[in-house]
Amino acid sequence: TIQHIFKEIFKASLELQEDDHSKALLVSRKKKAEDTVVTVNGQPIGDGGQSFIVGPCAVESYEQVAAVAEAAKKQGIKLLRGGAFKPRTSPYDFQGLGLEGLKILKKVADEYGLAVISEIVNPADIETALDYVDVIQIGARNMQNFELLKAAGAVRKPVLLKRGLAATLQEFMNAAEYIISQGNDQIILCERGIRTYEKATRNTLDISAVPILKQETHLPVFVDVTHSTGRKDLLLPTAKAALAVGADGVMAEVHPDPAVALSDSAQQMNIEEFDHWINELRPLVKQKA
Amino acid sequence: TIQHIFKEIFKASLELQEDDHSKALLVSRKKKAEDTVVTVNGQPIGDGGQSFIVGPCAVESYEQVAAVAEAAKKQGIKLLRGGAFKPRTSPYDFQGLGLEGLKILKKVADEYGLAVISEIVNPADIETALDYVDVIQIGARNMQNFELLKAAGAVRKPVLLKRGLAATLQEFMNAAEYIISQGNDQIILCERGIRTYEKATRNTLDISAVPILKQETHLPVFVDVTHSTGRKDLLLPTAKAALAVGADGVMAEVHPDPAVALSDSAQQMNIEEFDHWINELRPLVKQKA
Amino acid sequence: TIQHIFKEIFKASLELQEDDHSKALLVSRKKKAEDTVVTVNGQPIGDGGQSFIVGPCAVESYEQVAAVAEAAKKQGIKLLRGGAFKPRTSPYDFQGLGLEGLKILKKVADEYGLAVISEIVNPADIETALDYVDVIQIGARNMQNFELLKAAGAVRKPVLLKRGLAATLQEFMNAAEYIISQGNDQIILCERGIRTYEKATRNTLDISAVPILKQETHLPVFVDVTHSTGRKDLLLPTAKAALAVGADGVMAEVHPDPAVALSDSAQQMNIEEFDHWINELRPLVKQKA
Amino acid sequence: TIQHIFKEIFKASLELQEDDHSKALLVSRKKKAEDTVVTVNGQPIGDGGQSFIVGPCAVESYEQVAAVAEAAKKQGIKLLRGGAFKPRTSPYDFQGLGLEGLKILKKVADEYGLAVISEIVNPADIETALDYVDVIQIGARNMQNFELLKAAGAVRKPVLLKRGLAATLQEFMNAAEYIISQGNDQIILCERGIRTYEKATRNTLDISAVPILKQETHLPVFVDVTHSTGRKDLLLPTAKAALAVGADGVMAEVHPDPAVALSDSAQQMNIEEFDHWINELRPLVKQKA
Repeated sequence: TIQHIFKEIFKASLELQEDDHSKALLVSRKKKAEDTVVTVNGQPIGDGGQSFIVGPCAVESYEQVAAVAEAAKKQGIKLLRGGAFKPRTSPYDFQGLGLEGLKILKKVADEYGLAVISEIVNPADIETALDYVDVIQIGARNMQNFELLKAAGAVRKPVLLKRGLAATLQEFMNAAEYIISQGNDQIILCERGIRTYEKATRNTLDISAVPILKQETHLPVFVDVTHSTGRKDLLLPTAKAALAVGADGVMAEVHPDPAVALSDSAQQMNIEEFDHWINELRPLVKQKA
Repeated sequence: TIQHIFKEIFKASLELQEDDHSKALLVSRKKKAEDTVVTVNGQPIGDGGQSFIVGPCAVESYEQVAAVAEAAKKQGIKLLRGGAFKPRTSPYDFQGLGLEGLKILKKVADEYGLAVISEIVNPADIETALDYVDVIQIGARNMQNFELLKAAGAVRKPVLLKRGLAATLQEFMNAAEYIISQGNDQIILCERGIRTYEKATRNTLDISAVPILKQETHLPVFVDVTHSTGRKDLLLPTAKAALAVGADGVMAEVHPDPAVALSDSAQQMNIEEFDHWINELRPLVKQKA
Repeated sequence: TIQHIFKEIFKASLELQEDDHSKALLVSRKKKAEDTVVTVNGQPIGDGGQSFIVGPCAVESYEQVAAVAEAAKKQGIKLLRGGAFKPRTSPYDFQGLGLEGLKILKKVADEYGLAVISEIVNPADIETALDYVDVIQIGARNMQNFELLKAAGAVRKPVLLKRGLAATLQEFMNAAEYIISQGNDQIILCERGIRTYEKATRNTLDISAVPILKQETHLPVFVDVTHSTGRKDLLLPTAKAALAVGADGVMAEVHPDPAVALSDSAQQMNIEEFDHWINELRPLVKQKA
Repeated sequence: TIQHIFKEIFKASLELQEDDHSKALLVSRKKKAEDTVVTVNGQPIGDGGQSFIVGPCAVESYEQVAAVAEAAKKQGIKLLRGGAFKPRTSPYDFQGLGLEGLKILKKVADEYGLAVISEIVNPADIETALDYVDVIQIGARNMQNFELLKAAGAVRKPVLLKRGLAATLQEFMNAAEYIISQGNDQIILCERGIRTYEKATRNTLDISAVPILKQETHLPVFVDVTHSTGRKDLLLPTAKAALAVGADGVMAEVHPDPAVALSDSAQQMNIEEFDHWINELRPLVKQKA
């Protein structure tokens, strides 16, 4: 029947359209079939192995960062996180140490031979950040801060881009496209939970996002288990799920003394908890092919 | 200061309250610390091992069900699913074969030595179902059909209860409480994805729900990867995640010829795909302690 | 270009498809252009005028219902609500007086010359309900309890169908189709808020649903401001919005002494508040054309 | 009993806490009871009257803007919107004319005696914008771009702040607090729909947000009906609802020839549609007390 023919044409054109669209994106696997390997301080991310990024939510002092760095190094971790510029819901919450925080991170990183990742929130600070960090983080609240994305795309430094609070995967990939279209393809995508009606967890970890992003893009994909769940008791099972589902790595927050942390005190592991966590996960980590 | 004291009292009473509430539920681990083992046809579920439930979305014919049963049996699977009463969004979609479907399931199950699980949608049909099924399924759309829950609680037959389309975990546990409070503690909880803004998947698999339900209740927890994702290409990675996160088992839809299936044709595996899927998962399955 | 042509065909077939689909539904305005007027006890609903349904969340006693009935009658309201069968999240919460509750409602309604609406939750109770209620309510949790919908469609009594907790408008219209396809076209649709991430209100009132449902179906549409918001302080502004947006009426809960109510105590108006509320709204009510 | 006492203390301290928190915010009505009136080009907003902001999604040319300005002026509207910097999901979509667009807006505004509102997306552009616009708009994607908020707070120019795509009302009020805490209290809040599972509308208009924001803050509140619904056929009923619910004004997009618009072509009214729309709404508009 005529209707049936229309339906077939309809389906064909639908696929054609979607095809078109995905092909147009530089982040798409249709544009580049092989995996992009992001190299951080000589360490590859996205080469088939799985790795970890740990560190305190916010940089508070040299001693605090150094304590985590020491624990991380002992466990063979190469990448240290720490917030210097903290985007906080309320203007009256601790906003981070700023440049001072970046300097502490850099000093500790140099002493322990680690690479450093830290969030930048103002396009004007991207240039400065180049001297201090090995990976620029763009946070969930800034995933569609296109000026910041363009600024991060204009430099030659790896970028870890977090999924927005309620971003679709299409929007997430398009946000990465803002960076890559400026010439910077050293991008790590990071699923960090999405906003849903369920409040048992801080956000809802969208575990399916990982295989979808791995299929549709050529970029490495991490899972931030701390912000996804907001619950220390879920960091181990969700990290296991992340490794099993095929993520290139897992990010989690560690603080020498979470009870006195200036932010996110309830959800950071202390050193002992971190040691237990990483020891449980180690047997599950895939090594580079 | 007085304010600080109030805050401490506040926190203490908050915990007290929550404590109270959870203690009151019969499904709560505070009420019963050890795991409930559900026994289906002599097979234990929730004893520390992990198992699978597979089968077609809807029962269509003896031949169709038998084909899946044969494949399932070959792979060592003990539990066969199949829909006889199908709750469908539109009244004009295929509504299932009803009692005829239950009879087909029973016949095939007997021939292949499998146990059978099928959804019941009317409290009046619970009694009839006892003669045909080994596990009564209560579907997502009926998670708060309290009359149906009470009817399922009044019989002595295992129940698999699916999480509602947009149910909170509190509501889910309370729905199970409707069953257990009638005297039936043979309940399997089943995470099947929740409704969110993200449309890349049919629903959003809430993987964190598994460890939360395992902590807060003593009941076995399954993950239905088919309805969570609605995408065949995600069945393998999400099943890996489910096993890794600690689920007691995984449910998935298998159809000998998905292209002609009367429902959910896009998301069911064919026999060959199923064989590949189960072979990939087998090494990850935890055996009974 | 060829691509452009494909896109045009694509759009045309898309519209054709959607057309098809809507045309198929008996609730669709494409199937029946003129408004359906539901007649309750001789009173028309959906004739262009706007009306109110008020009453307590749950029937607790003759005195309680009579107090509200008296207040309602004084204000010229014709339709009284009251829950006899209460679907509650926890099995340990007050479940309603059941048949006893229906008898109280009937007695009060007869004395005050009002029509009565009450929720039925079990298909087996639909027949019994015919003797006591003028409108059968099907609640949000049962919007996709298809057995109940079919039972309500098989009788000749008006039905007020509430939108499910997280139902799409397509699913809502299809649920109504389950009723109308059984031969009962006396259906009132009721928007009652949807489940979202925002917790400032109990649910999020989807005000746009009203004009969409009025456009796409020929059925009357009410707004339940009590369950939409769960906040007494929002009942007046949201009722104004509902009247302005074109709803056929507004439903709200009124209790002579909300503080001692057995359910929903925080969100019910007392008689004095109700009098103020209705007096503020009266000038905005559209009268039958 | 001891438990009951604890519960009472619990409730009391809960209220105390919430009280505390709200009192701390400068945007809170607890801090300032009377309404803030924002003065734009001598025109008051938030003085009890209701007004409109209309204009094209994006500034495309002098002729385009002038056509809308003429229509707006004829209808007695004082405030013209138009996007010069367009935050777009894809980097390959039209990004706006930038400074050139601001110049066109300024020229047209001067000729027609209108005030102009336009979105700024980079903190570095706030200073420049002062010469061209009467109200700085901060868009939904930038609601938690705290650097931009601080920059807008540091100048003496009214700001229209849109609610984020999936922002809670608490986050929205805190975002406004970032502006006011820098010394700028000339803030208009704008509800523009939130992201939910329902896709019948582009976003879900959260109409209850208006009375809540009016109660909890002293700031004027607008409703953007265009982005809330994304459907031209809903602009009239939702604008009626916005006026009825107590908004201080309504924003909508108007384009002389929507079919050729470079963005949002499906949801903008043409001049004729705009004239009809405003004529229908005029009788409902509340005049200054």
